[in-house]
Amino acid sequence: MNRKVAVISGSLRKESFNTKLAKAFIAAAPADLEAQLVDISALPLQNEDLEQNLPAAVRTFQEAIRGVDAVLLVTPEHNRSFSAAIKNALDWGSRPEDINVWDGKPAGVAGCTPYNLGTFGAQQHLRQVLMYLNMQPLQQPEFYLERAAEKFDANGQLTDTKTKEKITEFWQAFSSLIDKIC
Amino acid sequence: MNRKVAVISGSLRKESFNTKLAKAFIAAAPADLEAQLVDISALPLQNEDLEQNLPAAVRTFQEAIRGVDAVLLVTPEHNRSFSAAIKNALDWGSRPEDINVWDGKPAGVAGCTPYNLGTFGAQQHLRQVLMYLNMQPLQQPEFYLERAAEKFDANGQLTDTKTKEKITEFWQAFSSLIDKIC
Amino acid sequence: MNRKVAVISGSLRKESFNTKLAKAFIAAAPADLEAQLVDISALPLQNEDLEQNLPAAVRTFQEAIRGVDAVLLVTPEHNRSFSAAIKNALDWGSRPEDINVWDGKPAGVAGCTPYNLGTFGAQQHLRQVLMYLNMQPLQQPEFYLERAAEKFDANGQLTDTKTKEKITEFWQAFSSLIDKIC
Amino acid sequence: MNRKVAVISGSLRKESFNTKLAKAFIAAAPADLEAQLVDISALPLQNEDLEQNLPAAVRTFQEAIRGVDAVLLVTPEHNRSFSAAIKNALDWGSRPEDINVWDGKPAGVAGCTPYNLGTFGAQQHLRQVLMYLNMQPLQQPEFYLERAAEKFDANGQLTDTKTKEKITEFWQAFSSLIDKIC
Repeated sequence: MNRKVAVISGSLRKESFNTKLAKAFIAAAPADLEAQLVDISALPLQNEDLEQNLPAAVRTFQEAIRGVDAVLLVTPEHNRSFSAAIKNALDWGSRPEDINVWDGKPAGVAGCTPYNLGTFGAQQHLRQVLMYLNMQPLQQPEFYLERAAEKFDANGQLTDTKTKEKITEFWQAFSSLIDKIC
Repeated sequence: MNRKVAVISGSLRKESFNTKLAKAFIAAAPADLEAQLVDISALPLQNEDLEQNLPAAVRTFQEAIRGVDAVLLVTPEHNRSFSAAIKNALDWGSRPEDINVWDGKPAGVAGCTPYNLGTFGAQQHLRQVLMYLNMQPLQQPEFYLERAAEKFDANGQLTDTKTKEKITEFWQAFSSLIDKIC
Repeated sequence: MNRKVAVISGSLRKESFNTKLAKAFIAAAPADLEAQLVDISALPLQNEDLEQNLPAAVRTFQEAIRGVDAVLLVTPEHNRSFSAAIKNALDWGSRPEDINVWDGKPAGVAGCTPYNLGTFGAQQHLRQVLMYLNMQPLQQPEFYLERAAEKFDANGQLTDTKTKEKITEFWQAFSSLIDKIC
Repeated sequence: MNRKVAVISGSLRKESFNTKLAKAFIAAAPADLEAQLVDISALPLQNEDLEQNLPAAVRTFQEAIRGVDAVLLVTPEHNRSFSAAIKNALDWGSRPEDINVWDGKPAGVAGCTPYNLGTFGAQQHLRQVLMYLNMQPLQQPEFYLERAAEKFDANGQLTDTKTKEKITEFWQAFSSLIDKIC
């Protein structure tokens, strides 16, 4: 049976380049991995007072993550850190206190920016969170995509050859980590 | 005229110890500083698609920060980083692209945790964001409060003498930074 | 055949508590793991100009790491980051440019401080370096030891029961990661 | 009287691009600032056992920093963090325990890399250390220089116009911070 990978985009914007990048990863996934986008836009802002009656959107999200073997996080960089939206999703996956839907799963990290640096700051913060959630991160290759606007066409399709090659290399390493850990 | 300081709690929970700590800071503010809680719970999750018609809650929040000389951020630690809620507020303060209500303002950072470590991980991430927002951070004293539940009484009042002294020292240094920068 | 683990203390001081902690880890290693202290005090400060004629101390150190299956890094915290000495050792293990003796090896991270916080800042920096070196870090349990002076006797023996239990838990998780990765 | 700025290169290599960048900063310093290179290559690896009889190189270095108003740190990136050499210098400036020659001084941070990213990882770690040392960091503009080899001529002179402009902008902001803090 194929292994399943949840792919999460940390941007809520419809025309987000990170969502386009997430879809490009999905399109390029190895044949023996089922990669699917898991949406995080319906989650309310994390608030312990909501936990006594966990919102349906939170339950649905937690089930989606429970059902996969690994997670690929594609994050934008906002003010040199990850987006509030992706942190919100990561936090809801570990609430209430005895829950951790991320526990032990291999985690890939990627992201793109309009200009340079390519989400280094965001990914570095993400990795600290993954440590606490006990996810097993893919270390190399790192995946920082700069000047994203030049890499996709008007239909949101990835057109840049070098980026396509990097995605292939990334999946090879991530797939190998998933085989080891799962 | 007195200088004004916005105090932001990064927790949305009603009985939050970080909100109690924020209020303890306000109660102990020097006579020549007006410190006031600025609420962040009404802000929607940051999404660029909302920027064409900026939500009223965002406008109100931005005005509140524009009206102060300095900001004190009191953050919980969720999964070894700041809360989604406080990141959301920081990001909304810098959107759309040509806006930055935080620019140049002195920033104090504090936080508390139920057990040990005292939000070190959250504060370290916060400081990277403050760099990009061009806030001028108070460096020393750092303020990490461990075992918060033991430090407040049933009415949410800070009772711990040592913590009270630390708050006083913090305000002295922060007040001095505000005088230099503003 | 037993797997081998190099244990590195990031402190050069003879009476270092981190070195004592490193030795306590070695004493408590599972029967099927051979854990040995690898000394880093003879390494010169990393300098590319030395690479044309690699110092003997560097060669010896690289061989020691090449000969093990996994590495346990025990770091002090100096000014909220790791020691220069441990960074120096990590860097020499990846020089000249085509060398990386750390590549793919599981990495455990631990440390102790005289007072509180327990090297959180040092370990968080260490993990970013481990990412680039493509080591596979143990995520949980984290290992932060506070008030180290109270935990050892005059002969440098660990006497604290709770810390001993934490070391046992740490080895269980680390040993399981080593089995998966190696 | 002119203010003095110590400029430290974190690379010990003779032909280091970071040292060339440090010299380019010095050459472009505003007329009312005296910027001078402070060498860190003679410092031994930090070791508390050396503190009972502080090495002459450490004393000389500490005096050099005590004699300036501000510090500009130009760091290479080694394995996604700062060099061992610059950390060693920062640590020696705060030893033995009651000494901190950095205390209160404004700190600028810059760096260059052969390829992309431009020392973001190194600088982010550096800022956490500066916090503990109670230096007041320049926040914006950040200074990340990519593809350094293309920016200097065979004599080590900076030739890239855009980088020269960035250095000028950096000095304007840093000079303004120095005026406020000192």
